[in-house]
Amino acid sequence: MTVTIAIDAMGGDDAPEMVIAGTSLARTRHPDARFVLYGDEARLTPLLKARKELADRTEIVHADTIIANDEKPSSALRHGKQSSMRKAIEAVSEDKADFVISAGNTGALMLMATSVLKTLPGIDRPAIASFFPTMRGETVMLDLGANIECSAENLVQFALMGSIFARIALGVSNPKVGLLNIGAEEIKGRETIREAAQWLRKGTLPLDYHGFVEGDGIPKGEVDVIVTDGFTGNIALKTAEGTAKFISEMLREQVRSSWSAKLGFLIASSAFRKLKHRMDPRRYNGAMFLGLGGVCVKSHGGTDAFGFANAVGVGIDLAVHRFNDRIAAELSPLSEPPKNNTEAAE
Amino acid sequence: MTVTIAIDAMGGDDAPEMVIAGTSLARTRHPDARFVLYGDEARLTPLLKARKELADRTEIVHADTIIANDEKPSSALRHGKQSSMRKAIEAVSEDKADFVISAGNTGALMLMATSVLKTLPGIDRPAIASFFPTMRGETVMLDLGANIECSAENLVQFALMGSIFARIALGVSNPKVGLLNIGAEEIKGRETIREAAQWLRKGTLPLDYHGFVEGDGIPKGEVDVIVTDGFTGNIALKTAEGTAKFISEMLREQVRSSWSAKLGFLIASSAFRKLKHRMDPRRYNGAMFLGLGGVCVKSHGGTDAFGFANAVGVGIDLAVHRFNDRIAAELSPLSEPPKNNTEAAE
Repeated sequence: MTVTIAIDAMGGDDAPEMVIAGTSLARTRHPDARFVLYGDEARLTPLLKARKELADRTEIVHADTIIANDEKPSSALRHGKQSSMRKAIEAVSEDKADFVISAGNTGALMLMATSVLKTLPGIDRPAIASFFPTMRGETVMLDLGANIECSAENLVQFALMGSIFARIALGVSNPKVGLLNIGAEEIKGRETIREAAQWLRKGTLPLDYHGFVEGDGIPKGEVDVIVTDGFTGNIALKTAEGTAKFISEMLREQVRSSWSAKLGFLIASSAFRKLKHRMDPRRYNGAMFLGLGGVCVKSHGGTDAFGFANAVGVGIDLAVHRFNDRIAAELSPLSEPPKNNTEAAE
Repeated sequence: MTVTIAIDAMGGDDAPEMVIAGTSLARTRHPDARFVLYGDEARLTPLLKARKELADRTEIVHADTIIANDEKPSSALRHGKQSSMRKAIEAVSEDKADFVISAGNTGALMLMATSVLKTLPGIDRPAIASFFPTMRGETVMLDLGANIECSAENLVQFALMGSIFARIALGVSNPKVGLLNIGAEEIKGRETIREAAQWLRKGTLPLDYHGFVEGDGIPKGEVDVIVTDGFTGNIALKTAEGTAKFISEMLREQVRSSWSAKLGFLIASSAFRKLKHRMDPRRYNGAMFLGLGGVCVKSHGGTDAFGFANAVGVGIDLAVHRFNDRIAAELSPLSEPPKNNTEAAE
């Protein structure tokens, strides 16, 4: 299958240069893929010309405007009809591309993508999913910020989408799914979480429900999929990222603290490089908007070509493995009896 | 001022041995303090006899039962009248001690302490506060798990208590207070958080309100006091702890991975010891139950004598600086006008 990727070439801190460089790297990794760059033709043309390797697989589609990073999502939705972001999303709804990727304004991308692509039948709200490095490899976590409040039904839908996503993106045949909570016992936590747990325990859904997972269970890799509301997920993600950064800062400070430390760290440098590689946030770049009528990938705005190419790779995995078709197929049990027992979303 | 400390000698994974060892260490650090050990006299007497340094400053008060770690808080409250935990708490309500400390069952301690000591006038709910190591030193965070749902009013009360706590325990003269949220902009986050922010921005309270703080702002040390609900606080705390553990595990793995790594880490070992010391969870041991009619300190159940003695130290700080009196004094603005604008707690 030839995957065609709609790229918002103007989104991201160092766009369009970083985006073109990332696309070029993705091109070498995925020789069969096709790329469509949406953005300012006058700026993109010379950049593309300088990359001979892209020429035969890439086209440019002009877009007049750019969604700024600090633009309010609602304003972007109203005034961004001619933006590179919107045009790239529309390429998916018009079947001109298999997925869209942007390193631009997250809130605007979510709102526009939801408006253009709509949610999948049976999914009330899209969720943002991404990867976490853990002691056992990688874990998928969702929602990371799309929905501040979630009903039990939302969480159950996230569990299902996360499970399919982990099968495709992590290659785990039967991913274990856990609900993020403040205690492992059944009686603990918020009402909606306990309600979702009750539903998941019934076993009517095609997923392996593990139970509640506490915050420290995320880096431990207790499960393959962590399900939570967007508020909690965002706090947990950023706290983990911040803690990792804090420790590496402390470590760096210690390296510089004495001659013996400098020497020791120099001798052990290959071990350090391995650790750095393991924790490299660029390796985990790419947040997926799951539950929309088309695959939408959000790259970190501050990433580089390497990180951008990784995010493209996750999108290709989802497109090749027909992620959305699988959601639709596995969603049918969700519309059955238990629905009456839980509050409807929204 | 001579501080008298009521100690639940039977709470904690290695109680009573660890508790006695920790008390002994606290005794050397605080030569003026007096200790009352609540628990099984037959077990405690020989342990105390073996510690000559404790003899003149310590007494034992017999308690028949022990609250198990897995006992439900409600059951502990009903059936634990003769427990070491309850007796130690009652020592505070009966003015026989300045504060109580336990390394036992957290939920039971919170429920019993609230039942016996009651909340302070003007405080609707107690909160659990503790320390986080950060790039800039230490930060106080609350609530860490006492209240799963919080109203705007609860959060405002936590902000005030946290500010006073930081002044006493961290020695910061004018602590910056932040609300944990998923974005720095005013429009972001949950309704209750925005409502609390509105109140805090008014400046009618004697505290320095900084604004919203995201998850990565905790380890960055953006503020001295992080205010959040107990669900989010617990998830953030455990995610941070788990991430720190994960990275140190990875580091350990790398140290063992090759001879050059082993040699390098050996040469740099003093730098590593410093880093380890900086992140040592025992240094941050001691969660405070703030807002009760008496100071109650929860030590980590799995800590050692060093960690237990640190938790005793925080309690002594609160007692010496009359934490509860200061809350009462600074709470008065809270009962004024803005109250009408926000929903009441419970």
